[in-house]
Amino acid sequence: MTTPMSRRDLEFLLYEWLDVEALTSRDRFAAHSRDTFDAVLELSADIAMKRFAPANKIGDANEPYIGEDGKVVLPDEVVSGLAEYRKAGLIAASFDEELGGMQLPTVIRQASAVWFQAANAAMSSYNFLTVGNANLLAEYATAEQRDTWVRPLVEGRFSGTMCLSEPQAGSSLADITTKAEPAGDGTYRITGTKMWISAGDHELTENIVHLVLAKVPGGGAGVKGISLFIVPKFLPDGTRNDVALVGLNHKMGNRATTNTLLNFGDGTFSPDSTPGAVDTQPARSAPGAVGYLVGEEHRGLSYMFHMMNEARIGVGFLATALGYAGYQASLEYAKVRTQGRPVDQKDPSTKPVPIIEHADVRRMLLAQKSYVEGALAFELYCSVLVDQAATSADAEERARIELLLEVLTPIAKSWPSQWCLEANSLAIQVHGGYGYTREFDVEQYYRDNRLNPIHEGAHGIHGIDLLGRKVIMQGGAGLALLAETIGATVRRALEVPDAAAYAEVLQSTVDRLVKVTAHIWSAGDPKLSLANATLYLEATGHIVIAWMWLEQLLAADGRTGDFYDGKRAAAQYFFRYELPKTGPQLDLLTALDRTTLDVEPSWF
Amino acid sequence: MTTPMSRRDLEFLLYEWLDVEALTSRDRFAAHSRDTFDAVLELSADIAMKRFAPANKIGDANEPYIGEDGKVVLPDEVVSGLAEYRKAGLIAASFDEELGGMQLPTVIRQASAVWFQAANAAMSSYNFLTVGNANLLAEYATAEQRDTWVRPLVEGRFSGTMCLSEPQAGSSLADITTKAEPAGDGTYRITGTKMWISAGDHELTENIVHLVLAKVPGGGAGVKGISLFIVPKFLPDGTRNDVALVGLNHKMGNRATTNTLLNFGDGTFSPDSTPGAVDTQPARSAPGAVGYLVGEEHRGLSYMFHMMNEARIGVGFLATALGYAGYQASLEYAKVRTQGRPVDQKDPSTKPVPIIEHADVRRMLLAQKSYVEGALAFELYCSVLVDQAATSADAEERARIELLLEVLTPIAKSWPSQWCLEANSLAIQVHGGYGYTREFDVEQYYRDNRLNPIHEGAHGIHGIDLLGRKVIMQGGAGLALLAETIGATVRRALEVPDAAAYAEVLQSTVDRLVKVTAHIWSAGDPKLSLANATLYLEATGHIVIAWMWLEQLLAADGRTGDFYDGKRAAAQYFFRYELPKTGPQLDLLTALDRTTLDVEPSWF
Repeated sequence: MTTPMSRRDLEFLLYEWLDVEALTSRDRFAAHSRDTFDAVLELSADIAMKRFAPANKIGDANEPYIGEDGKVVLPDEVVSGLAEYRKAGLIAASFDEELGGMQLPTVIRQASAVWFQAANAAMSSYNFLTVGNANLLAEYATAEQRDTWVRPLVEGRFSGTMCLSEPQAGSSLADITTKAEPAGDGTYRITGTKMWISAGDHELTENIVHLVLAKVPGGGAGVKGISLFIVPKFLPDGTRNDVALVGLNHKMGNRATTNTLLNFGDGTFSPDSTPGAVDTQPARSAPGAVGYLVGEEHRGLSYMFHMMNEARIGVGFLATALGYAGYQASLEYAKVRTQGRPVDQKDPSTKPVPIIEHADVRRMLLAQKSYVEGALAFELYCSVLVDQAATSADAEERARIELLLEVLTPIAKSWPSQWCLEANSLAIQVHGGYGYTREFDVEQYYRDNRLNPIHEGAHGIHGIDLLGRKVIMQGGAGLALLAETIGATVRRALEVPDAAAYAEVLQSTVDRLVKVTAHIWSAGDPKLSLANATLYLEATGHIVIAWMWLEQLLAADGRTGDFYDGKRAAAQYFFRYELPKTGPQLDLLTALDRTTLDVEPSWF
Repeated sequence: MTTPMSRRDLEFLLYEWLDVEALTSRDRFAAHSRDTFDAVLELSADIAMKRFAPANKIGDANEPYIGEDGKVVLPDEVVSGLAEYRKAGLIAASFDEELGGMQLPTVIRQASAVWFQAANAAMSSYNFLTVGNANLLAEYATAEQRDTWVRPLVEGRFSGTMCLSEPQAGSSLADITTKAEPAGDGTYRITGTKMWISAGDHELTENIVHLVLAKVPGGGAGVKGISLFIVPKFLPDGTRNDVALVGLNHKMGNRATTNTLLNFGDGTFSPDSTPGAVDTQPARSAPGAVGYLVGEEHRGLSYMFHMMNEARIGVGFLATALGYAGYQASLEYAKVRTQGRPVDQKDPSTKPVPIIEHADVRRMLLAQKSYVEGALAFELYCSVLVDQAATSADAEERARIELLLEVLTPIAKSWPSQWCLEANSLAIQVHGGYGYTREFDVEQYYRDNRLNPIHEGAHGIHGIDLLGRKVIMQGGAGLALLAETIGATVRRALEVPDAAAYAEVLQSTVDRLVKVTAHIWSAGDPKLSLANATLYLEATGHIVIAWMWLEQLLAADGRTGDFYDGKRAAAQYFFRYELPKTGPQLDLLTALDRTTLDVEPSWF
């Protein structure tokens, strides 16, 4: 089987470019070294290849279902592979030692996770959600809550979810209707329905810790009235909490991740409805699932953003990993599959050549390489920023890094979701008819990856987040910081003969973006300014990835060999074939085009 | 259920724009009138909605399989729906009356077919192949062959396939190895393996007529040695011919179309292997499947191009129909689904609005509308050209129309395959999480449509066909004719205030394409000239669709009402958001970029 991720590329990005070893000079990571990093990555690659990859098609072909006992049934290979992951202690990678964690940098945890994402995207999501959930609680939960919930999560005995969406409210959290009533004993009773909850039910772990957004009576309207609750499947005394699995969604891809409709407090598991159950918690006589408030009332969304921002980078990694897996598979195929002859070879008695000899196949491979390696570089870069922000002793530096992360997060989520999906389409195309069959892997990658522009904020939401909030926050400091950070790379690149021409193009594109942004906001009409926010997101995304390629060019500078030549070729591809696509997008943004505003629904 | 195709748009395109009624003044269509056209279209819409649409999910969820008796099993709804189609006589639509046909124009036959393609793409392919097969034979077969094979095909008693690809030769027909040996009685014995044969086996009809490309010993090397054979599943005496179903391919989509690996002449159905069978054809003692030569030896590929050109436009229609179905579904959804508020409405106590109120949703709907209606216009336009060429009394005019068709065919196949697939992705996006589930229709459209850039010549092949053959054929007359034909539209549009600005942009883009083409071929190196043929194909495609939008603008000129305003908005969208994408593509082509040529396989 083809390796769906590249050890060599990870090594280049982590050590030759990002110099993650330098993180070990910070107190938090002082116990680590490149050796411990490598050991974790090697262990990850090993388990991913041996236990996740072989279960990928199995999980796809054998969708989870609800058995006669009402429990979710997953294929054995999925169950045992995930058990192996937890047994290896990998959930604990980046948590504090005090919580039983390994206290590894986030970037190493993500580089470990990307192996599992590439080998089996659907299985990886269980871990992804558990880590995000525990990270949020490690930050905001009380000491008692940390002992009760976070420790078992870190140990891998419990797993976690995030419960935001409802059937009537996906992208619009202001409209959630799930309620939380104080029970009088410090706990709350939660009632409502949550939709699209990944890993929302299963038998993989002893317990499931749901993080639920709900409204406490008397809170403000919209998102201001939202609070955050821990709502476990089983209460600390072992009784079933009133969280009921109503149904499983049947998806195009990502099938081995259960995706659920959950009812909270509909009485399915009320003490009365469980024959012989002894209600050891008196307050349970009030209807609703038992919930434990996280932090303060009405601040739930701000806590949840901690998990959402992490999840957004995580989705970026997931999309990248799937793109990467498709690239590796189609590259392997293109080297061995023979078909046709060079366009200047007319003699049909000559032997057919491997299809990698055809310019259009190379174009499709270079495009994939530029997307997936560009995206992986970017996601790892963001992860290093997370580590730097978390460990910076200088408050000002920390604030700067956090601001840069704020600006980059919508792109980290959306760019790979768009372009690594396109990479998967190209991977199918390289395979021809074979790629359209389920005998090969690439069609599943394409189906799995189509989820990523939808969840964790639909694509268009991130455009509004970027243009409507992030680039103008702190009086425009967000965009200025991005431009300045790219500018620093440009200045270094101008000194390097192979990179100088690209640096100039990148700088002029960034300069234009800054001007266009100011122009957009000079319109005096937010509706008009935001009408083409998605194009703004996409143009900015391409600029950021071009920057990542310029960075990689610099890291490869002066080094010889196929690997570095490949980096140079992919950078060239991105600058010649991709970055110019931003031209018409910036033109349209400059025109403050009204087409989408002026069209009437009745005209369609 | 949403109607997956629009009667109103078809009416506009056929009657208000293309004036297909004028075809009835030609002898061939003299028996027809708008009434008979409408009757066929109404019947088609009716059967498509009642018998094809309800079977769409059923056929997807219940993939064909090989039963214990070795026969292909399809769901009852698929079998009975296809029987209803044949019973209605729709296969006969465009065939000569002499052959039992209705002698309708091709454009009406296609407008009928597009209803079935939109309602159930996978089911429609059985009919599509039968018609294409019979059309080829009606042109090139002997009178006896027409009686034996074409009449039952037209009646719907038999069905047809095209057998080109082999496991080792998909896009490269020069490398096929299937052999045809003369049997001494005027028939041939065929031996070899054919891959990717759609509708290659099933129990839907009394017989299956395979059209098989094979090499007769002594023929030239490469494509010059290829001959074409009728190889039926059952011989005229009712005995089984030696054509064996080896396996079914398991696809991402288009599942209800069987896609097969067939062995010809492997002995499975030799007379010896069929106990009790009486071999009524003495020559069958020679090994191989019995084949009947079509036309002359060694001219097979030129005959097959008759079917391939038709199939390429047919694939364009199929991709368009799937895009259209997704557009209609997401439009309906966007009107009824409420979510969020306008970006300038901050008060969360106001009611959520239908998502069609959001600019980004409108963008996604306008994009889809511009792709699918632009593509439908283009495919119908090509179909009218087919009718005009077939009925033109003027040899020179006929040659011109045929040349224009030659130039347009690669675009007719590839543009909708690319952009109506993108439309399907947008249709999913409009639906949010729901669109990713199999409870809604759009994810299936997306999976079904992903086939279209692969079969009937992979995407990249059409780039080489367009740039390497079509635009330079007859000393460049192909491109000159295209430019002149677009120029005629531009001249009319320059007189129309609403269209003049677009006309100017289109003209300057066409002028640039002509210059760039000359420049590309001035390189003196075919490898370099063709290195970016796919980009050339895509840029030319966008120009052609912009032309189609200019045509529709003219047809809508002076007319008021929502429908016409919608046409104007979609045209505006295409000219502002889409056509400018050709700028960077033409820049890259002008640069004669060598990136894909210079990269070494070892660098990946």
